[in-house]
Order: sequence, then structure tokens, then C-alpha cells
Amino acid sequence: MAGNSFGELFRISTFGESHGGSVGVIVDGCPPGLALTEADIQPELDRRRPGQSAITTPRKETDEISIHSGVFEGRTTGTPIMLLAKNKDMRSEDYHDLLGVLRPSHADHTYSEKYGIRDWRGSGRASARETLARVAAGAIAKKYLREQYQIETLAYVEQTGDISSVVDREQLSQEQVESNIIRCPDQEAAKEMIALVEEVRDAGDSIGGVVCGLIRGVPAGLGEPVFDKLNADLGKAMLSINAVKGFEIGSGFAGVEMRGSEHNDPFYAVEKNTIRTRTNNAGGVTGGISTGELIYFRVAFKPVSTIQHEQETVTTEGESVKLSAAGRHDPCVVPRAVPIVEAMSALVILDHLLRHKAQNQ
Amino acid sequence: MAGNSFGELFRISTFGESHGGSVGVIVDGCPPGLALTEADIQPELDRRRPGQSAITTPRKETDEISIHSGVFEGRTTGTPIMLLAKNKDMRSEDYHDLLGVLRPSHADHTYSEKYGIRDWRGSGRASARETLARVAAGAIAKKYLREQYQIETLAYVEQTGDISSVVDREQLSQEQVESNIIRCPDQEAAKEMIALVEEVRDAGDSIGGVVCGLIRGVPAGLGEPVFDKLNADLGKAMLSINAVKGFEIGSGFAGVEMRGSEHNDPFYAVEKNTIRTRTNNAGGVTGGISTGELIYFRVAFKPVSTIQHEQETVTTEGESVKLSAAGRHDPCVVPRAVPIVEAMSALVILDHLLRHKAQNQ
Amino acid sequence: MAGNSFGELFRISTFGESHGGSVGVIVDGCPPGLALTEADIQPELDRRRPGQSAITTPRKETDEISIHSGVFEGRTTGTPIMLLAKNKDMRSEDYHDLLGVLRPSHADHTYSEKYGIRDWRGSGRASARETLARVAAGAIAKKYLREQYQIETLAYVEQTGDISSVVDREQLSQEQVESNIIRCPDQEAAKEMIALVEEVRDAGDSIGGVVCGLIRGVPAGLGEPVFDKLNADLGKAMLSINAVKGFEIGSGFAGVEMRGSEHNDPFYAVEKNTIRTRTNNAGGVTGGISTGELIYFRVAFKPVSTIQHEQETVTTEGESVKLSAAGRHDPCVVPRAVPIVEAMSALVILDHLLRHKAQNQ
Amino acid sequence: MAGNSFGELFRISTFGESHGGSVGVIVDGCPPGLALTEADIQPELDRRRPGQSAITTPRKETDEISIHSGVFEGRTTGTPIMLLAKNKDMRSEDYHDLLGVLRPSHADHTYSEKYGIRDWRGSGRASARETLARVAAGAIAKKYLREQYQIETLAYVEQTGDISSVVDREQLSQEQVESNIIRCPDQEAAKEMIALVEEVRDAGDSIGGVVCGLIRGVPAGLGEPVFDKLNADLGKAMLSINAVKGFEIGSGFAGVEMRGSEHNDPFYAVEKNTIRTRTNNAGGVTGGISTGELIYFRVAFKPVSTIQHEQETVTTEGESVKLSAAGRHDPCVVPRAVPIVEAMSALVILDHLLRHKAQNQ
Repeated sequence: MAGNSFGELFRISTFGESHGGSVGVIVDGCPPGLALTEADIQPELDRRRPGQSAITTPRKETDEISIHSGVFEGRTTGTPIMLLAKNKDMRSEDYHDLLGVLRPSHADHTYSEKYGIRDWRGSGRASARETLARVAAGAIAKKYLREQYQIETLAYVEQTGDISSVVDREQLSQEQVESNIIRCPDQEAAKEMIALVEEVRDAGDSIGGVVCGLIRGVPAGLGEPVFDKLNADLGKAMLSINAVKGFEIGSGFAGVEMRGSEHNDPFYAVEKNTIRTRTNNAGGVTGGISTGELIYFRVAFKPVSTIQHEQETVTTEGESVKLSAAGRHDPCVVPRAVPIVEAMSALVILDHLLRHKAQNQ
Repeated sequence: MAGNSFGELFRISTFGESHGGSVGVIVDGCPPGLALTEADIQPELDRRRPGQSAITTPRKETDEISIHSGVFEGRTTGTPIMLLAKNKDMRSEDYHDLLGVLRPSHADHTYSEKYGIRDWRGSGRASARETLARVAAGAIAKKYLREQYQIETLAYVEQTGDISSVVDREQLSQEQVESNIIRCPDQEAAKEMIALVEEVRDAGDSIGGVVCGLIRGVPAGLGEPVFDKLNADLGKAMLSINAVKGFEIGSGFAGVEMRGSEHNDPFYAVEKNTIRTRTNNAGGVTGGISTGELIYFRVAFKPVSTIQHEQETVTTEGESVKLSAAGRHDPCVVPRAVPIVEAMSALVILDHLLRHKAQNQ
Repeated sequence: MAGNSFGELFRISTFGESHGGSVGVIVDGCPPGLALTEADIQPELDRRRPGQSAITTPRKETDEISIHSGVFEGRTTGTPIMLLAKNKDMRSEDYHDLLGVLRPSHADHTYSEKYGIRDWRGSGRASARETLARVAAGAIAKKYLREQYQIETLAYVEQTGDISSVVDREQLSQEQVESNIIRCPDQEAAKEMIALVEEVRDAGDSIGGVVCGLIRGVPAGLGEPVFDKLNADLGKAMLSINAVKGFEIGSGFAGVEMRGSEHNDPFYAVEKNTIRTRTNNAGGVTGGISTGELIYFRVAFKPVSTIQHEQETVTTEGESVKLSAAGRHDPCVVPRAVPIVEAMSALVILDHLLRHKAQNQ
Repeated sequence: MAGNSFGELFRISTFGESHGGSVGVIVDGCPPGLALTEADIQPELDRRRPGQSAITTPRKETDEISIHSGVFEGRTTGTPIMLLAKNKDMRSEDYHDLLGVLRPSHADHTYSEKYGIRDWRGSGRASARETLARVAAGAIAKKYLREQYQIETLAYVEQTGDISSVVDREQLSQEQVESNIIRCPDQEAAKEMIALVEEVRDAGDSIGGVVCGLIRGVPAGLGEPVFDKLNADLGKAMLSINAVKGFEIGSGFAGVEMRGSEHNDPFYAVEKNTIRTRTNNAGGVTGGISTGELIYFRVAFKPVSTIQHEQETVTTEGESVKLSAAGRHDPCVVPRAVPIVEAMSALVILDHLLRHKAQNQ
């Protein structure tokens, strides 16, 4: 109810601040019998961690995960799985001079207004470090989906600043995504994007981007009509990620300008029991329920709020001050957001699979 | 869990199909003592109902609402409020020839796949008639917010097809929105939009649009960090409305191309305890929590799927057929979507107000 | 959250007051394809309704139920099923003189304290008339359990006042329960109980009783460990029924005096994969999970609070008054409680079946 | 949904097995600003821990708790509080010979049936070691209730085997409860109880008991009518504790034999706005809502299932075997159950306080 849990049947509850003792998650409702060790989780965390390339923050965080419960002799038991990563890079003294200074477009002000108290060390609970817990939990969901249902969640950087890319979504593989440090499978666009991020970084500034999420192999029938539409739950999942300002599925905002006669996806039958659509403007979801086609959506990330430029701001007391941030942050968040988008996708799909199974199978 | 409820503390549960006995909603968790009669609800339903103008479907539905419980001597008692509207226009024979035919981009196929059974009369539960229940429940939330907190929810048509408008969001009033039948307060744009919708209608086609939602007077501090961010819950609320394909808040997708130094919203102090921002790229929400500035967001609606053109499709059995729809539908959904967007906004804000109060006040 | 819903996956939400327009329930999450008409529900309501025999209240309420949604061509569609019974016997003038008078051991005082407002007609929302909605929803659960899983829920009156009965729980049938108006299958005890209730009724007083609930055919494995133990959810279900003051399962309070060596239920194998216990002190649940043995539990009902005796009390304003109730009420609630206990049992078991299926099958 | 969380607004989620890495809990929804250190929690754990006296299990577990998140500079921040105790006494080799043997009246069989896999070391998740997490979370709730609302939760051993006690509930203090090792404030009865437990222990057997819970200072108005009645939620909380077989509030099962004219609690006015009852057969809750009187209830614990006697049983494969337990267990669980009952009481009351505040204040 206080907003730290996600999912109904495959349910995660995260905890921890950027500079407290640890960050972690309880995964509740995982089916029993899944083979699971830390080695299934760590690679996903390594794709998210800071310091992984020249265009991410130079902060070093190893983000080493350990399983504290719910696994016995290498298999899940059906009981809660607690995953924990200790905070190792606790240079909270870096932040001492920020005490009381409200950083523009950070959550300092809103947390103070909400709670009347605020952990000012590195954004506290509002830190993107919380997403570590999501990626760890998502790794379990991804493994289960892959092994039991042959469902694959993928994501890639589609746009950085004003540089777009062209990608064949149907054929995309994770290897292509991982082939460069910006995680854009269009190699030409990727080069330009990397150059842009470097330029922005050297200017002490930041830039936004778009991550495209893909979910392949989802059978028709997932999603609950009315409020818990599959697209609504995917949207909420993505909009809950730090710095996200927009979400669209299928034709999205561009579909607004289309006529129904162009936008409708005609049905045809591959064989008697396999009905497909010739186009996929729906993005794989109609009436809130998966169609069996590829699910694809776009997620807009704003430019990172921490910049090196001097900014006008105030203290909690309302006194005007100037702020020159000297923290170690990413000039562009999208390459590291790719595994987060995948994790949230997997959590939504597995939750809806279990919900569908409960009522309808 | 089956997706027919929305909200945690101010919680609505809707029921009913387009051609069953009735459509309605239980509103649970409403604070006691609110003056309430059907007259507080009916005007909102009249803004949503079909047949209200030349550019909506000619179907006549009176959508008369009645209160069945939870109100005593004109005031809410704190117990569940059940609101019900009978289905009067039950011409289900209109749909008899559709039996088994999967209408492109409707939910016929996905419902069949999910449940193995489908109420084929006028889309059944997937019908937009379900939104009547949301608007009725939202009318209660709107009244409470207005009377107890001076919070106002507004929405207007910002775009229809490729025709955009220019609107001063800070000054907008509901009178301006209601001044024309397309509900776009930019009168020049409104004329063009109406002409476009008429052209599309006469061509037997449909067109999409964008509704902009505004929430005025929200104090700083609402929204739960991490998963139940205020923007994530608003996004889910909007994406759960029929035909919605995208949601963005504040700078949204356009913010992607901005630099942090442009995008950040600088703080200043109006007086000691009133901290505001000079710009509002955040759209009124930072770190998932309201900032105290105007909340604004954009919602993309696809073109209506029912068109008069002949379309290729298949039956449930996979047999190819041609479909010429002859139902009575809207050429463009956005004018009638305006009260739905407002209702969903009010439900989200009131729910978060109660959640915030429980923990933090 | 306001306490009007029960169940997680098979979830009911009730509404209505004793003298408002209607009483009803939304059943959400019902599996699709179940054959269902009002005739499946009405017989259960008839077992609960007032005026059914010489030892219940003479009020006449027909409690006629109608299905408003979620059923198409005689089968459930998987969407919300709304069931409604209109309030026909609205003699609220009977209650006008009670306005402001707090009836001892009724909820008048606590509702006033909670909400600051109170529907004083016939107990309002606190009326046992709300249980009509539970019985209606429970009838659906009972039908599904019987047809799909051969699970049967039964209940009977085990004790009335100080008169106990002896019943062979393993062999009990519903016919035996229904063979007399007190619903006690021990015919000798039943006669004494009926005489006691008549005596109490003629004295203008009331008396309590114990209902024993039985659930037959539950496979091993239902129930969620830790907080949502099957016994804990059954206990909550029963304690949520009006006038219930106690719940015990298996050996219950009597088990307190036993030694572990007597109380433990020894295992034996009927065949390789069918492990059973020689005794059943557990009452069919161990570690919160069903064992496969008969589930049995006892529910204590206090004497009805409405009596004909003159009582000392106060008004809402704290003024001393004398109260002589003249309402038409039951001298003993247990015969009419039998179908309520069965309904709540069925709701708990079906909900746990779906939960178990989602995670573990 | 998998049953490892409790509460709606003040919500705890526990994790951990008796012999895995650790046992712990996330407390979500705690109001911000509460002064909190490990020293507020540890004393409650010390009352629960094994090895605390001659009549508990000789196992030594220090149960040292640490706070991992949600507290900053000694105060709660409103974000999730994760509490963790490492498992130190990991003699899982003690249990190696139990592999495959189903211990009578333990959850070995039911867990195997449910999950198809089972952590057999010391009962795994079904171990009473999980209650450590409840007591830790409950210590936070108790502190908040005491400091903000002057509400006190108490419990004591009322009965052990067939030895009952006489206690003045209105005047009882925690000092009296803690004055002897069985935690029964009736000193004469306590001596007999201790002698009984020693006799049972020496015979290699076990015995049950009754814990009485008291909650003092609860204002009128807490509890949600219908399903989430305060007594129903207290009942569920208690029935979710390991080994509990019964719950009764106020007059409970004894009230069954009373007439309404004896059982009803007459109202009187202390002063205009303070209405009280002359008797308290209700146990402090009427219509599911607190009356303002002392809340009291009784909880029945069965005899511990682990005994030294040789028992007949079977293996998971259905093979007959004899079992002589040699584990180190309690002969009687009630003295250590006292802080658990208090903790669960505090969790229920604080949750309902926040729920009431959200809707009604």
C-alpha cells in the first residue's frame, strides 16, 4: 500500500536506500522447483551496474547479490525468496554539503514534503539504485518464462537525444543489443548516439532517450480486461522506473493521425486454430489482452537531473543558493535502463500468466 | 484480481456488459458525510453518453443512474455505494450476424482466446459502455476533491487526427472546454477538428486523437515512491481506458531530446514554506510524488475500430469472411473521452490522498 | 480496504443495507463456462431467509435474487457476476422510535463512533441481511466445487444453549441436516433444542448456539503457509459473520489439555501415494495446509441482541432511556446460520484452490 | 498472495526458513518520524527466544536483529524497514536422518503435497522460527501505538494443560506477566503450571495451553464492518500462529449458553460524550468495531508435535517407519507464545488505526 510492492501473484517487495546498509527484494509466489542460484541473477545485474562502460557513471558498484531464503538444494521451494546486495560504495560524505539543498528535478523536495524527513545521502530511497532489486527479481521471472513458456523479453535503445535508429524488431536478438555499449542494434545510429553521449558528458550535461521493449512468445489470452489490461500494467511498470515520462504501445501517439481503415489489423488464419493479424498496430495487445503477436512498446526517459552546470535553487528552508553538482552520474540513462525495462516486462508477464492460469486453465 | 477493481483505499469495482441487464459500480471506502444524490452524478454521465452531438454515435442511451446503497438521508455513510444504470437500448439482434465473426482490432478474438466463451453482443464486457461506471464513480471523487481540497480535474481535446491546438493550461476552465462539441478550447482548431470528424464520418471511417488531462490544486506530497508513483498510477488509469495507446506526462516523449540543463525545473521560494519551480517539465510529479505544480499529461486514442468499410477477417473457426459493419458508432472517440479522463484522474488523486493521509498525517 | 470484499482470486464484494434499495454482491474471478441461473442460487437463499419456520423471525422476506451480469446464454463468461435482491419489506417506520437510542450489544454505538453518521433503519449495513449476499455468492462457489472437484461443504447445529448433540461427521448428509427446523441431525437433541428455542422465544429472550462446519473432499495441499493458513482464513471467514464470538478447528480448545503423544495424528499409507492419518485432531489442516482428511470446525454464536425485555440504555447524546424492542427477530440464530457457514466455507476453499493452482500446478 | 504478508496499510512481509541463511521481515507503511533503533526491538525478541528458561527448549539462538533500511539518523523515514536476523545455530545435520520421514502433526506431509519439494531442515518455512520476524515487526507497531495513542498490548498464559488461572484483566501489568517463567500472573497457578511442564518434559511429552490477549486503550471506532471486522482480523492473526487451534473473543464459546438478557452489555454515559458498557461480554468489539472497552480474547495452543516418544509414521514414499525424535524442542509453547500474541495484536490494531484514519478522520 506504501508502494513498495509490485505484482499480484508473482509479487516483489523491494527495500533499501542508496547509502543504507543494503538494497534487496522479496520475491513471493514463485513456483516451486525452478533451478536457481546467484549465477542466474548476477549477469543481469552486471548489465545494469554503474561503471560498466565509458558512457556510464564512473562509480564502481559491484552489486553482488546473495539468496537468503526460498531456495533449497538449488531449487525454489515456493516460499519467499529474499535477495540482497550490500551497499559497498558508501561515500556519504560526498553528499554532506547537499544537506538541505534541493537539487532541481530530483525528489529531494517532494520527499521532504511527503514525509517531513529525508535521507539526503545520494537520493535515499528515490535513488535509481532501487532498480537493482527489480533487475534481480526480474532475472527469476525471465528464467521461468524462458524455461517454461519460451517467452523472451528484450529491450534496446531506440533513440538517444534526437538520434533515432531502425531495427527489425521481429528478428532482434540479445546479442545484437549487447554488441555495443549504448545497446542500440543499429550500428550506424549507435555510433552517433555514443558520440552524442560523450559530447553531452564532456559538456557536463545530460540527455534523454527512448528504450523499446519487446516481448516474444506470449500466447493469446494474457491480461485482465477493464483495469488490469496488459498494456495498462506494462505502462505502470515502465512509468514506475526512475526518469520515465512516457509510454506508448503499438502505434502509440503516431496512431492518433491514422484512420481506422489503415490502423485496424486484419485477421487471417494460419491454420484452423491459429489466427493471426497481418499488421500489428495493436502492439500485441487488444482489449487489454495479448493477441499472440509480438508485444512492443516505447519508453521515454528524460535527461538525467544531475548535471555539472551551476544551477539556481533553494534550501529546504526556502533560502536561495547555487548548486554545482559534483556527484558521479550518468550522462544518459538509457543503456543501463535496458535490463530494467526487460525485468519489469518479465515481472508483468509472469504475474499475468499466473493470474490467467488461476481463473481460466 | 480479475481486473475489475481500481484503487486501494477509494476503490471501485465495476460490472456489466453492453447488452446485459445493467452496468454499474461499487464505490468502497468513500468518506462518510459527503452530500450525494443522483443529481451530482448524472451531469457527468450526460457528457459521456452517446448521441450527445452530431459528431458522436447516433445511438440513444439515456444512462440514467440510481444509487442503491451507502447513502442515507442525502449523505454518504462510509459503507459501499452501489450505482447502477439499466441497459435500455438492447437491440442485440443488430449483432446476431456478427456471431463468430472476429471484428478487426476489437477484443472479440482475445476474449475468445482468454475465456473460451464470449458475449458477442456489442463487445460484451469489452464495450466502452463499461466506462459509464467509471464516470459515475469519478463524479463522487470529483465532488469530494472539489469540496474538501479545492482540487479540480479537467481534460480537453488537444489533437484530432493531425490537427493540433494551442491552449493556456494554467487558465483553462471547464466552460471553455464545453463551449463546442469536440471539447477543444482553441476555437479555431475546434472548427477544423469538427470538420475533419465529419469528413471521416461521411467516409465511413474513423480517426484518433489526443486528450490532455489537467489536475489543479494538488498539494505537494501525493504519490507513493517506487512502484505506485503518482505518474505510474495516472498512466495505468489512462491506459486502462478503451482505445488508449499512449500516455506521457510533462515533457513526455519530447523531453527525450532535451538536455538536463534545459529540462531541469529550477526551484524558487514564493515564501518560506512555499517552494515552487520556474518551469514545469516534470508535469507536476517528481520522483513519483506531486510537486504542488499543475499536473498535466497527454493520452493517445487510436481511431475507433468499427468502420463502415468492408474488411477482410475470419470467424472464430478460422474461416475467411468479409465484414461490413453496420453498427452505430463514433467516428472519433475523444470528445466523449474527456469526462472519462477526468473521472480516472479524480479516482487516482483521491485514492492517493487517502493513502497519504493514512501514513503521513 | 474498507472491509466489504472477501477473497483474493475468487473475490466477492457486497453492498446494501437492510432498508436501503437493495442488497447484493459482485463475484469477481469466477472461472468461465460454469452453467449458472438464478435457480442454482435461490434454494440456498431460501435456507437462510427469515420466516422459514416457527422458530425464526416472522418477518417475511422473499429474498429473490437476479443475475445482472457475467452470465451469457446460461454460462459464466469470466467477467464480474452481479447478484441483486431488492429490499421488499421496507417498514422503516418500525424503527423511527429507535432514532438516537443505542440498542445494547448492537452496532449502533460503534457505527456512530466510527462514521459520525448512521443509517438507523434496522441496523443499516450492520444488519444480518448482508449475509444474504454471502449466501448468494457462496452458492456459485459451492456449485463449482461440487462439479469440478467433488468437494462438499456442509454445516449443522451442534449445540443450542446448553443442549449438545452427537453426530457422525464422516457420514453426515445434507438431507439429515435439513430433516428438522433447527438443522441438527441428532433427532433427539433436535427436539430438545427446538423446545428450548420456543421457551426462550416465549420468554421474549434469545439464546446462543454452535454451528459445526464440515468440508469433505478437499485434496491435500490447499492453504498458504504463514499468514494465509487455511485455518486462519476459515477462522476469519467465520468470525466475520454477525454474532460469532469463537472459532476452533479440530481438537480446538479441548486439545489444550491433551499431551502431544495423544494429540499427534499418526500417518499410515493406504497405498503408495495416499498417505492418511489414523486420527484427525488436526481437523484436516496441518501447518496451515489441508491434509486430505475431513476439515471440521466449530463456530460459536452469541444470543441475538434483540430481545423483548425492557433494557437500560442511553441515546447517542448520552441520555438515559429505557428500551423495549418490538422488532421481529430470531430467538436463536443458528438454524439460519447453517447456510451462511457453508457459503463462507465454499468461498474460502475455492479461493485457495485457485491460489494453489496459480503457483503450484 | 502466497500468504507471506499481513496487514493492509501497516504491512509486513516475512521471509526465511529455520536453517537457511536468515529470517527477516519488511515492514512497509510505517509512519515517518518514529525514533527507532535495534534496542527497541531486541527485548521483545529476547522474550520469544529459545533457551530463555528451564521450561523452554535448550536450543541457544541469540536472534540478534539488525535494521537494514528505512531508518535514517535514528528515525523512520516512511520507506520500507527491513529487519534481519541471521541463523546461527545451523546444525542441520541433526535433521539428516529425518529426510523423507513424515513427522506426525508436523507440516512435512502437507508441504510436500503442496509444493512437491520440501526443505526438511528443522521444518523449513513451517518452523516457528518465522515468528521471530513477526515479533520484530510487532515491536515497531507496539512502540508506535504506545507513544502516539497510549495503546498497550498485553498477553499472559491463562491455562496450561488443565490448570487454569484467575487474573484481573483490567489491572494486569507486564511486570506481573514477566514475574515468572511460565508468564502466568496468578502465582499459585503459575507454580502448578511450571511443575506440570517439567513433568511433561521429563516424560518426553508435550502439553497445550491458552494465552489470553488484552488490548487496552483502543478508542471506539476501529475495525471495518462486514469482512474485516476487528475480531475477524484478530482471529486470523492468532490462528496464523503455529500450533493455534482456537480463538474466542469476549464471552466466546461460553456465551453460547447465555440468554440475550444476560449477555447484552448495557450502555451508560460517564459523561455526555463518553458512553460505556456496564459489562463487557463483547470483549471490546461490537459489529466488528471497537467499543472503547478492554479488548480481550483467548487463543488455544495444541501440544507441541515434537515429542521423545517413539511414533509410528511413514516416509514420503509411503513406507512404514518408527520415529524417535531427538530434536531440542519446547515441552509447552505458551510462555514463548506470549510475545507473539502481543506482536500480532499490535500489528492488527495499528493497521486498523491507519485504515480508520484514511477514511474517517
